Amino acid sequence: MTTFPAGRSHAEGLDAADPLAAFRDRLVRDDPGLIYLDGNSLGPLPRATQARIAEVVGQEWGAGLVRSWNRWIELPLEVGDLLGAHLIGAGPGQVAVCDSTTVNLYKLAWAALDARPGRGVIVTDDDNFPTDRYVLEGIAAQRGCELRMIHTDPDQGIGADAVRAAVDERTALVSLSHVAYRSGALADMAAITAVVHEAGALALWDLCHSAGAVPVQLDACGADLAVGCTYKYLNAGPGAPAFLYVRRDLQPGLQQPVWGWFGQQDQFDMGQGYHPVPGIGRYLTGTPQIIGTVAVQEGVLLLADAGIDRLRAKAVALTRYLISLADAWLAEYGVTVASPRQDERRGAHVTLAHPEAWRICQALIGRGVIGDYRTPDRLRLGPVPVFTCFTDVWDALDILRQILADQAYLDVPQARSVVT
Amino acid sequence: MTTFPAGRSHAEGLDAADPLAAFRDRLVRDDPGLIYLDGNSLGPLPRATQARIAEVVGQEWGAGLVRSWNRWIELPLEVGDLLGAHLIGAGPGQVAVCDSTTVNLYKLAWAALDARPGRGVIVTDDDNFPTDRYVLEGIAAQRGCELRMIHTDPDQGIGADAVRAAVDERTALVSLSHVAYRSGALADMAAITAVVHEAGALALWDLCHSAGAVPVQLDACGADLAVGCTYKYLNAGPGAPAFLYVRRDLQPGLQQPVWGWFGQQDQFDMGQGYHPVPGIGRYLTGTPQIIGTVAVQEGVLLLADAGIDRLRAKAVALTRYLISLADAWLAEYGVTVASPRQDERRGAHVTLAHPEAWRICQALIGRGVIGDYRTPDRLRLGPVPVFTCFTDVWDALDILRQILADQAYLDVPQARSVVT
Repeated sequence: MTTFPAGRSHAEGLDAADPLAAFRDRLVRDDPGLIYLDGNSLGPLPRATQARIAEVVGQEWGAGLVRSWNRWIELPLEVGDLLGAHLIGAGPGQVAVCDSTTVNLYKLAWAALDARPGRGVIVTDDDNFPTDRYVLEGIAAQRGCELRMIHTDPDQGIGADAVRAAVDERTALVSLSHVAYRSGALADMAAITAVVHEAGALALWDLCHSAGAVPVQLDACGADLAVGCTYKYLNAGPGAPAFLYVRRDLQPGLQQPVWGWFGQQDQFDMGQGYHPVPGIGRYLTGTPQIIGTVAVQEGVLLLADAGIDRLRAKAVALTRYLISLADAWLAEYGVTVASPRQDERRGAHVTLAHPEAWRICQALIGRGVIGDYRTPDRLRLGPVPVFTCFTDVWDALDILRQILADQAYLDVPQARSVVT
Repeated sequence: MTTFPAGRSHAEGLDAADPLAAFRDRLVRDDPGLIYLDGNSLGPLPRATQARIAEVVGQEWGAGLVRSWNRWIELPLEVGDLLGAHLIGAGPGQVAVCDSTTVNLYKLAWAALDARPGRGVIVTDDDNFPTDRYVLEGIAAQRGCELRMIHTDPDQGIGADAVRAAVDERTALVSLSHVAYRSGALADMAAITAVVHEAGALALWDLCHSAGAVPVQLDACGADLAVGCTYKYLNAGPGAPAFLYVRRDLQPGLQQPVWGWFGQQDQFDMGQGYHPVPGIGRYLTGTPQIIGTVAVQEGVLLLADAGIDRLRAKAVALTRYLISLADAWLAEYGVTVASPRQDERRGAHVTLAHPEAWRICQALIGRGVIGDYRTPDRLRLGPVPVFTCFTDVWDALDILRQILADQAYLDVPQARSVVT
């Protein structure tokens, strides 16, 4: 870590030199005094998305009525291709926007087990996102499999060696997050996927905390399967549909368990017997949510304009700067950095640890700085690369420093809120 | 069928006497010349919904950002209770708004099989909606069950005797549609549920074509399980979330297979091990789509204002009138009524049969009358009880009569469109 000038003017200089600075105005900023560092939970609203939703509701639904299905019906795969091309390194015909991350994870994990008959072990890690762990636990229970849980350092995430030690000839599936939800630790997708393949298993990656923030190269890494949400860095809004990826050569042999009419050949023939389409469409289930899907489309287009490499460079610069300020200002109050310090091992958010993290988070919110709390003692600060400026980071850390210096968090009652 | 005056003035009189006439203005009518008879596929846009979506997007997401989850997180069950109370006869704590009909059907059918160990037969009927048949076929394949298909008269739907003949001591689950998607035939939920229970099986009802159009009494009928969509008569928009019902006393013993974080106790503790909440929340999976859920809420509130009994009375009157005009005007051109003629056996849409149904449907659309085609030779006309007026029906049938008299449909090419 190089030394840096701690004055606000340094942040102002970084903002002046930021090639993405103009993008800030393409997202809604209702309260100029608010500092939003929770893009890793719910991304802000792009102005284009607000306009597009109004158009889809008023014109396409309101005026077009059922006729608009002629344009809507291809959206899940069209937007999947767009997302694949710009953000996650997936060639066409391998990504669909549909369902929730939870449901997609269920579908793909189930299908993976079918594709590895005779292997009865699913591997994940104990710091994986809760819904991932629960879904895999459920499938293991339903199918009489073993769910093998790698114990992971909650600050540093998972490495290839830990995976190598956990897999064997009985392993059907390894399901991991690319960026850890709590620490922001970034896994080495290529190396871990190679280890999984050496064991003859399939690799299923959860991209919830990396899609749109970290360049992902699914095809180049040889990944088998992936899922991810769109309401974080893709800025597609609360509960917008998730996406899934199935590598092209796996598609013919991989059948998901929820046999819905949107996966059926000649869907509107409505015939007897389920005959799934040959391509990625076979992983669709029911009627897709259209408003959310167009919000994903707009979210991807915004990030595509910014460019994933520039977004990554900015995310690295923002989080590096945040860590530098935390080291300089907060260590004396018992705050430690609970995210990897190496840029290449870190996603787009930084996690700080302090025994009073929950109350500190509430005190921050009270002073207009939105981050979030994670058990047991973690404060996550997630800059939005396309939106957050360096003075936001400076101001947020300055306010956090004041809260700690004054012990102002002791005024916050202990009860927890439900904010995600 | 009583005789009736066939002039348009009769329809005008019916409109003048319609207690729900004023509701028409509470939905968007962009093109006053358009006659919309496809509410059974995609309901029109309520004005309140348009305003509410704009508010949720702009204020709750755009300005409120992640803080709005404090109000959103309870919506799936709050709106479920609202829907249950006003439209489907379900007491509180038994309905959740979530996922798609397809996914919900999968979850509940799977759970039902677990609840009937040792029984290996699922019963449905061959005129059930495609996604229902496909989902059940998939589950049967995955679990080594038999899927027993009742052959049903496609004009008249399913009756209790046919179900009685199909169930036995090996039957775990009977899954049927309350209103048949093609004919509009309305099944006797109470009688059929009783037959299912006599056999010791569970009854799972698909309410897609009845919720919001036909009074449903899930609790009073002793129904076990139900699912349904919200984009038809609930007017919640394309791909809005579906709902599910699990009778309260079944909930503790009925575990669905997709173990997601929204079903977990103390969700934000994010702890190890899946421990579902005791109530209806255990049937939630991933992060709910919020925009769609508020659209369901507005859709239910609109219908609650109208009152389900008045909506049903109007649906009966509209469809009876439609059948009368079809009999009087269209029989000579080879059109037959392919829906039950008894009011109490019919949902809210009427299906006509003609060998050229597809081209006739396209010709109608070309003249501003939106219905839809269903295989092999069916034209569905679905008045929207809260929106459609009697002169709409008169005008639509008059245009249809002209198209048939002129054989104008012969100008339409044979290729099919994808309109749902």
